[in-house]
Amino acid sequence: MSYDLVIIAAHPDDAEVQMGGTIAKLTAAGQRALIVDLCDGEPADYAPLGTRRVQALNAARILGADRIFLDRQDRFIVDDIPTRLAVAGLIRQHRPHMVFGTTGACIHPDHMAVTPLVTAAVFYARLKNWDRVPGGEILANTEPWEIQRLFFPHCKMEPAWGDFAFAVDVSDTYALKKKALVEYSSIFTVQTGDQLLELYEAEDAHMGRLFGIAYAEVFKSHSPLLVSDPTVFLSGMHG
Amino acid sequence: MSYDLVIIAAHPDDAEVQMGGTIAKLTAAGQRALIVDLCDGEPADYAPLGTRRVQALNAARILGADRIFLDRQDRFIVDDIPTRLAVAGLIRQHRPHMVFGTTGACIHPDHMAVTPLVTAAVFYARLKNWDRVPGGEILANTEPWEIQRLFFPHCKMEPAWGDFAFAVDVSDTYALKKKALVEYSSIFTVQTGDQLLELYEAEDAHMGRLFGIAYAEVFKSHSPLLVSDPTVFLSGMHG
Amino acid sequence: MSYDLVIIAAHPDDAEVQMGGTIAKLTAAGQRALIVDLCDGEPADYAPLGTRRVQALNAARILGADRIFLDRQDRFIVDDIPTRLAVAGLIRQHRPHMVFGTTGACIHPDHMAVTPLVTAAVFYARLKNWDRVPGGEILANTEPWEIQRLFFPHCKMEPAWGDFAFAVDVSDTYALKKKALVEYSSIFTVQTGDQLLELYEAEDAHMGRLFGIAYAEVFKSHSPLLVSDPTVFLSGMHG
Amino acid sequence: MSYDLVIIAAHPDDAEVQMGGTIAKLTAAGQRALIVDLCDGEPADYAPLGTRRVQALNAARILGADRIFLDRQDRFIVDDIPTRLAVAGLIRQHRPHMVFGTTGACIHPDHMAVTPLVTAAVFYARLKNWDRVPGGEILANTEPWEIQRLFFPHCKMEPAWGDFAFAVDVSDTYALKKKALVEYSSIFTVQTGDQLLELYEAEDAHMGRLFGIAYAEVFKSHSPLLVSDPTVFLSGMHG
Amino acid sequence: MSYDLVIIAAHPDDAEVQMGGTIAKLTAAGQRALIVDLCDGEPADYAPLGTRRVQALNAARILGADRIFLDRQDRFIVDDIPTRLAVAGLIRQHRPHMVFGTTGACIHPDHMAVTPLVTAAVFYARLKNWDRVPGGEILANTEPWEIQRLFFPHCKMEPAWGDFAFAVDVSDTYALKKKALVEYSSIFTVQTGDQLLELYEAEDAHMGRLFGIAYAEVFKSHSPLLVSDPTVFLSGMHG
Amino acid sequence: MSYDLVIIAAHPDDAEVQMGGTIAKLTAAGQRALIVDLCDGEPADYAPLGTRRVQALNAARILGADRIFLDRQDRFIVDDIPTRLAVAGLIRQHRPHMVFGTTGACIHPDHMAVTPLVTAAVFYARLKNWDRVPGGEILANTEPWEIQRLFFPHCKMEPAWGDFAFAVDVSDTYALKKKALVEYSSIFTVQTGDQLLELYEAEDAHMGRLFGIAYAEVFKSHSPLLVSDPTVFLSGMHG
Repeated sequence: MSYDLVIIAAHPDDAEVQMGGTIAKLTAAGQRALIVDLCDGEPADYAPLGTRRVQALNAARILGADRIFLDRQDRFIVDDIPTRLAVAGLIRQHRPHMVFGTTGACIHPDHMAVTPLVTAAVFYARLKNWDRVPGGEILANTEPWEIQRLFFPHCKMEPAWGDFAFAVDVSDTYALKKKALVEYSSIFTVQTGDQLLELYEAEDAHMGRLFGIAYAEVFKSHSPLLVSDPTVFLSGMHG
Repeated sequence: MSYDLVIIAAHPDDAEVQMGGTIAKLTAAGQRALIVDLCDGEPADYAPLGTRRVQALNAARILGADRIFLDRQDRFIVDDIPTRLAVAGLIRQHRPHMVFGTTGACIHPDHMAVTPLVTAAVFYARLKNWDRVPGGEILANTEPWEIQRLFFPHCKMEPAWGDFAFAVDVSDTYALKKKALVEYSSIFTVQTGDQLLELYEAEDAHMGRLFGIAYAEVFKSHSPLLVSDPTVFLSGMHG
Repeated sequence: MSYDLVIIAAHPDDAEVQMGGTIAKLTAAGQRALIVDLCDGEPADYAPLGTRRVQALNAARILGADRIFLDRQDRFIVDDIPTRLAVAGLIRQHRPHMVFGTTGACIHPDHMAVTPLVTAAVFYARLKNWDRVPGGEILANTEPWEIQRLFFPHCKMEPAWGDFAFAVDVSDTYALKKKALVEYSSIFTVQTGDQLLELYEAEDAHMGRLFGIAYAEVFKSHSPLLVSDPTVFLSGMHG
Repeated sequence: MSYDLVIIAAHPDDAEVQMGGTIAKLTAAGQRALIVDLCDGEPADYAPLGTRRVQALNAARILGADRIFLDRQDRFIVDDIPTRLAVAGLIRQHRPHMVFGTTGACIHPDHMAVTPLVTAAVFYARLKNWDRVPGGEILANTEPWEIQRLFFPHCKMEPAWGDFAFAVDVSDTYALKKKALVEYSSIFTVQTGDQLLELYEAEDAHMGRLFGIAYAEVFKSHSPLLVSDPTVFLSGMHG
Repeated sequence: MSYDLVIIAAHPDDAEVQMGGTIAKLTAAGQRALIVDLCDGEPADYAPLGTRRVQALNAARILGADRIFLDRQDRFIVDDIPTRLAVAGLIRQHRPHMVFGTTGACIHPDHMAVTPLVTAAVFYARLKNWDRVPGGEILANTEPWEIQRLFFPHCKMEPAWGDFAFAVDVSDTYALKKKALVEYSSIFTVQTGDQLLELYEAEDAHMGRLFGIAYAEVFKSHSPLLVSDPTVFLSGMHG
Repeated sequence: MSYDLVIIAAHPDDAEVQMGGTIAKLTAAGQRALIVDLCDGEPADYAPLGTRRVQALNAARILGADRIFLDRQDRFIVDDIPTRLAVAGLIRQHRPHMVFGTTGACIHPDHMAVTPLVTAAVFYARLKNWDRVPGGEILANTEPWEIQRLFFPHCKMEPAWGDFAFAVDVSDTYALKKKALVEYSSIFTVQTGDQLLELYEAEDAHMGRLFGIAYAEVFKSHSPLLVSDPTVFLSGMHG
């Protein structure tokens, strides 16, 4: 099966926290989305083994996305060649137009590994002749695939971004994002206030209010942005 | 009459050099464009008085835009309150959605003045009660107008930009841009090679090739970009 | 009379919006604060002449600060020598240890003028021999005064800062800040939601949540920070 | 035993060179400090095996700090999971409020490894359930510990910093820093002038003179700074 | 044999693309140059095994340089200690004054590995006592060597640089650069237009035109530049 | 008379403090240098009227340069059109290859004015047809002159630069720089230690030690640097 967008994240809940509103918006518009968590997020702090995986599948369903888990070990995710090949294989299999990967300038070492890992995987995905690369034969049974754009949502564990490539208006789908996050009741203390959840919503609200809208999610890009014409940009509060 | 976009530039030919392809693309799509030159570019180096004004009107016609000239003195353009008010008045009169102004980090003092000048004019344009501002009464007879976006094309007299907000694919309209520049035969030695013209095309070609297209023009923005969803961004060469 | 801190702002309400929590915190600790508005903020959008001045005095009282107004014209504030001298005179008269000035990278031309203006005024304030400077004699009747630190709060009309010198925990005094802002009922639609007020609180909340606290105000500094030892820095959420 | 601050450095003498004055100042104020060298600095250029370890212990004593050595190989220090776990274990054991780690933008590959290594170790230190992480069980026998702040002193082998988070006035303890450095007589040619020692003192003197004091050491921080109020900042030369 | 400059690149053709004009210029002036490709670039897209190696040797000959290949695997080049030691060994053997290494901020993971790899190798090359470093004994049979400068040419697969340390005027030797690139006929579709080749020339032309010359190649440096006096800098178009 | 280099500074002693070693080095190599102070530095803090002018002439003589004074008022130097024209006239008259101007990011408003002022003057100097520019006729009686390079030395009143275009080794001529500064005995307390003088020497020493030399002065450039080949760069301490 093919997907229009593939989101590569370290742990269950990262994709939701970083860009849940954007995922919901794109799937509502008919795009097919696949979330790839590099691990299953175990051990979770407050739940029996396996709980988080169920939560993650529920959360993805709320956002209209499919979800799979790679078998890396939470806390020990690194940018190594086998993981690059595994992610590149998924990209060749699902042939997305857009790929999203967690940004690296972060306090969580698992998150830090995702940016170079996804960048390399996107590059590997489009190369030919893997049958002639010792150690890379796993990619020989899929066709090369060149994605169109690679973007990086803000990891809310790192300091705020003053400078980013673009924001997406997620006001319409923010209720879905919050509903997806509520699924992770073993991580976030949803009912009574949770420091992380409050930070997440505070950021999305602040970014939104900068444009006079309710909520926005922000993204960086390693390559510059190209548009057909500048009328694609929505109005800001102050020009 | 109203315009969809207003381009504020210091001199005749600045708008063409910096964003002629984008203007032609937008007017071809039905947008109405007005170029405002803050002066008439006199004294020109190699032409009798008045020649440049005729050239500029021809060039605008090629790009599908209207053009007017303010009466500031070439070489002595500064960000002062009368010029802010004059530009704000034009914005209130023509009610554009987008405004473009030359970027300021430049070797030409006239160009350097345009960024703060246009920023202030855009702000003045949306304020009320000018009848109660001594010295600002000239704006009292127009209605407040709030633009949607303010962008700044690259001034090709300054060093190249490594970082910019977005590029516009102008491959389709680049022939028109070159045709418009040819109008300025008293400034550019078009037939036999001209250092400046060569620099201009080299920049637009380089920016384009970064995306695997023929030509691109690049823009900055003081406020962050907001999009409805990230599918508005065109493909890059390398994701 | 002397003050421990002097805040220089373009308009009534700027000081409150940008650093009302910090002012209230410092005055609660016994510091004497003076807010200097460079103009009286007229014409205000929705109130008769003079209303805003009364509101501003009330707001200052809530924050525990005194307030005076210079007679510059709202919308036309520029960094000129007479205004530098006027502000320098106030600094020499009131001999503060800290001075705060609105940061300049902003869409409002009045705000943009404050940074160079205050920087110059702080410099003028400590110079000798003004009796021998034609045009600067107005400073000859006050003694030179050298402040200790000059800081710049974030102007909430400009894009968010990713990088700033330091944040101040204003959770304890945030209710006072909001109460001071409520005074400006002719500017902000307080009861039913106001785009600007919501932006302001969203920013202060976001900055706070980055540290696991309720609200923070953020500041830049042109000169680097010096501390006696690093234990003065409070805990962050993530080290 | 617990420590208030733990300094993680690649080699003996790094902690002294980078922040010896700050260590001496904090220990003089009663803080307990532990220096952790990731290796013993062998082979040293000009001394028999074991000499440098003795020197390092003497130097730490002069600064009022304790010191231990991990058994990594000088020149081959990398950010790998076993070393992250080892450092995290020390943090959990000693429960410091502040941790310091060498900054990474450096010409020495050992130094470059320290920033991501310490960042990861600080993060690992506060996580629960290590008994359920295959390969991470070594942390299961210590309690989670969350530090308050993580700072990075300037590595004097890299270019000067124009921008840093804060400087510490170390004028009072600079004689102790120099005395500690003199211990390393096999590395630095102390009596007759040594290129590195001269660079180190030149940097500390220059940073100090920027504030009108004798010596300062400078630090970066990945997370923004939070203060209770801005009066904690000392006076600069120029506001 | 000794060389004046050693260029470390990931693949055959990288050195030519990034700095072929500079190599040709230096060899024409009598400098001896060695290109070190970390792998042989296999599998190449459109040529039988071994073709690329022959092409690369031809291309080096055109530029007046010698060339050797290390046996790393294309696509899997990483910054590991054995490769650092191998490159350091070459530096100690050939004793160059200048070393060049591909810059790391790139989409190609092989390229990204070169910057830290070469930086570490240059550092290893000047250290003593490798016989006492377990795992580093391979360097014990060469003498320490300290290079004078390490520079990084622009990798044309990454976005354009707005800021770089210096440009080299390669107008005179650009024909040789193009001739060298033509050797790689299995990679670039030279006769009929090739997207990559067009990007490469577009960049070199754009950089050149910024100075009013035909072609320039641009370089970064991790350490600041030192000159005897500023008359070494050539004229720009605009001062 | 023509000069090879013209240094534009706000006050007597600025040129010496910022780049005295470079001036002495260039004049020793036979270059003719003219220092242009925009004012005479009066009122000086500790000397009768006229003293500073004599000191400045002596200091210039020590550096091997000529010196003239414009009649702007110390403390009130601004970037206005008459001063641009005056400086442009000097450039046309003296036809230098290099121009130097104080950098603007400074706490002293006079210094802040110099960067845009000199940038504009250099641009004006090469334009034709000033007889047809009302208000600019003063330039009509000199021929256009295009300089080769414009550089900006570090103003030691602003924070240290981490990033600069290049440093000049001034170890050989530093004694002359100090001798020139001693001339200003009414400003600097030379014999017994002066805070500013100590800062100046601390900066030059620190910049030098970064390269393993005694003293260096550092410069920025608005346009990128172009060299014939990279062998013009001297050795650094660490490559």
